[in-house]
Amino acid sequence: MLTVTVLLVLDLAGTFAFALNGALTAVRTVRLDIVGVITLAIITAIGGGVLRDLVLGATPPATFSDWRYLTVATIGGLLAFFLARLLVRLEMPIEVLDAAGLSLFAVTGSLKALDYGLGPGQAIILGAVTAVGGGTLRDVLIRRVPEVLHSGLYAIPALIGAAIAVLADQLDLRGAPIAVGAAAACFAVRMLALRYRLNAPTPLANGAPEPDDRAPG
Amino acid sequence: MLTVTVLLVLDLAGTFAFALNGALTAVRTVRLDIVGVITLAIITAIGGGVLRDLVLGATPPATFSDWRYLTVATIGGLLAFFLARLLVRLEMPIEVLDAAGLSLFAVTGSLKALDYGLGPGQAIILGAVTAVGGGTLRDVLIRRVPEVLHSGLYAIPALIGAAIAVLADQLDLRGAPIAVGAAAACFAVRMLALRYRLNAPTPLANGAPEPDDRAPG
Amino acid sequence: MLTVTVLLVLDLAGTFAFALNGALTAVRTVRLDIVGVITLAIITAIGGGVLRDLVLGATPPATFSDWRYLTVATIGGLLAFFLARLLVRLEMPIEVLDAAGLSLFAVTGSLKALDYGLGPGQAIILGAVTAVGGGTLRDVLIRRVPEVLHSGLYAIPALIGAAIAVLADQLDLRGAPIAVGAAAACFAVRMLALRYRLNAPTPLANGAPEPDDRAPG
Repeated sequence: MLTVTVLLVLDLAGTFAFALNGALTAVRTVRLDIVGVITLAIITAIGGGVLRDLVLGATPPATFSDWRYLTVATIGGLLAFFLARLLVRLEMPIEVLDAAGLSLFAVTGSLKALDYGLGPGQAIILGAVTAVGGGTLRDVLIRRVPEVLHSGLYAIPALIGAAIAVLADQLDLRGAPIAVGAAAACFAVRMLALRYRLNAPTPLANGAPEPDDRAPG
Repeated sequence: MLTVTVLLVLDLAGTFAFALNGALTAVRTVRLDIVGVITLAIITAIGGGVLRDLVLGATPPATFSDWRYLTVATIGGLLAFFLARLLVRLEMPIEVLDAAGLSLFAVTGSLKALDYGLGPGQAIILGAVTAVGGGTLRDVLIRRVPEVLHSGLYAIPALIGAAIAVLADQLDLRGAPIAVGAAAACFAVRMLALRYRLNAPTPLANGAPEPDDRAPG
Repeated sequence: MLTVTVLLVLDLAGTFAFALNGALTAVRTVRLDIVGVITLAIITAIGGGVLRDLVLGATPPATFSDWRYLTVATIGGLLAFFLARLLVRLEMPIEVLDAAGLSLFAVTGSLKALDYGLGPGQAIILGAVTAVGGGTLRDVLIRRVPEVLHSGLYAIPALIGAAIAVLADQLDLRGAPIAVGAAAACFAVRMLALRYRLNAPTPLANGAPEPDDRAPG
């Protein structure tokens, strides 16, 4: 019961972070009106959870049928819309919010997958899908190549956070500190990757790129 | 029983309108061959209903398993393909067909959600998702920013139509006239928004836009 | 039982072909790092099967819950990543791998749909959706207009392969030779279309295109 509450709080915190992120992305990169901003905030915030629940067959998805998610996502979107000038001036770090959502959803997504009887490996992957799903939908809708494809250290922190949560669960270690710790590990790896511009290796690294194929890309 | 028939007729009418719209969009904006045109017509026509049924867990989706939807969508796509020159010359209003599909699906989508036990709020939102889903898939596939994001008065009419249908149902008012009236309200708001270029407010309106971020966008 | 094994082997072969294809596409057309390449390989390889199973309500999707698919897809992605220079120099035909995946998934997808009680028509269409689904997700994520929309003889071979498999099943003809034959027919049509640049008819063919709408497209 404790775990349910902890998961819900972490899930709603991730929802809020992603809603702020989605709305600020909408304000900064495409000229959207208030409905577009709120819509992108909600899709970014609940998209990952909807994908997770569709895969699990847990329909209707919790992030849709439970009003708290939609309410938190809408509040986040409205806040970002009305405080956009302020948040943009403060250089309010969109990436920090994204990393927070990523970390929280990786953990809660993987634990929900375990609850539905998936094996540990699949639970880790579904946690990562939950974490990157909302941002991927956001990027597709505003026509960007999704972060998860071109930034190697985006999926990896999510997999690390989910793996810690799943391994702890397999060792019968559960509860708020474990979940928060797993999310913190994901968050730390992601922030380090952003700070030091870490990247995963790229292909063809052992020679010059093919000039004709790759020059204009 | 009456309601079922009414809903089916309205649903098939919306399917036909969206199929024509999807096919004409394919002809006008991207050079697609007949298979591409029919495919885009079908996706535009049944995409919203498929999303709705996946969220409801009503699998396989009715718009897929019931042949009437696929048949109507294919006929609409073929008609638009072969009459493209005529329809384009007549300035056959793509937006009018889109508004018709939007209105009909908002109502039928929200009523189906009520049938599946969703609360009134979620039913209204799922009605709007049904209404904008097919067009959003269409826009993503042909690489446009979806209408629902950049045109504020696209989602709002759908929410209004769905809200009227749901509120009437809560008051035990059901049947064809109610459903048609709710769809007509949605259609009227959408057409007024198009005619007078109404838009929802945009962010940063209380000052100049950030020049460096927004100028090239 | 035999059929189950045959279907599994064909399905895994299709998964491997699509994984190689997705990874090579990632290497050639967008500068992705190793995580991006593997991610695109997996999405291309299992995306069609996930869509199929979501539509069938067969959750969690087999391509996700059965480790063999993810393993095969990951191996394909890693192989393509590390052998990219070699494969690109050999002009390793991306389209051939795509045609192989297309053919195998059209057959296995349609037969799984029959197993789940869908009618023959819907099973044929769902087979085609399984076949084109992964590639369509791949194209949307890297911002290309999906092959299925602009290349008419992409969906049609899939429909032919699925139709042969479904018709044979309706005539109580089952087993490995039938399934392989249906896939081979799809593959042959697809390769002929590529070789001779066959295309389906385009709209407005009976006159000049509308200059103002279409010139810049």
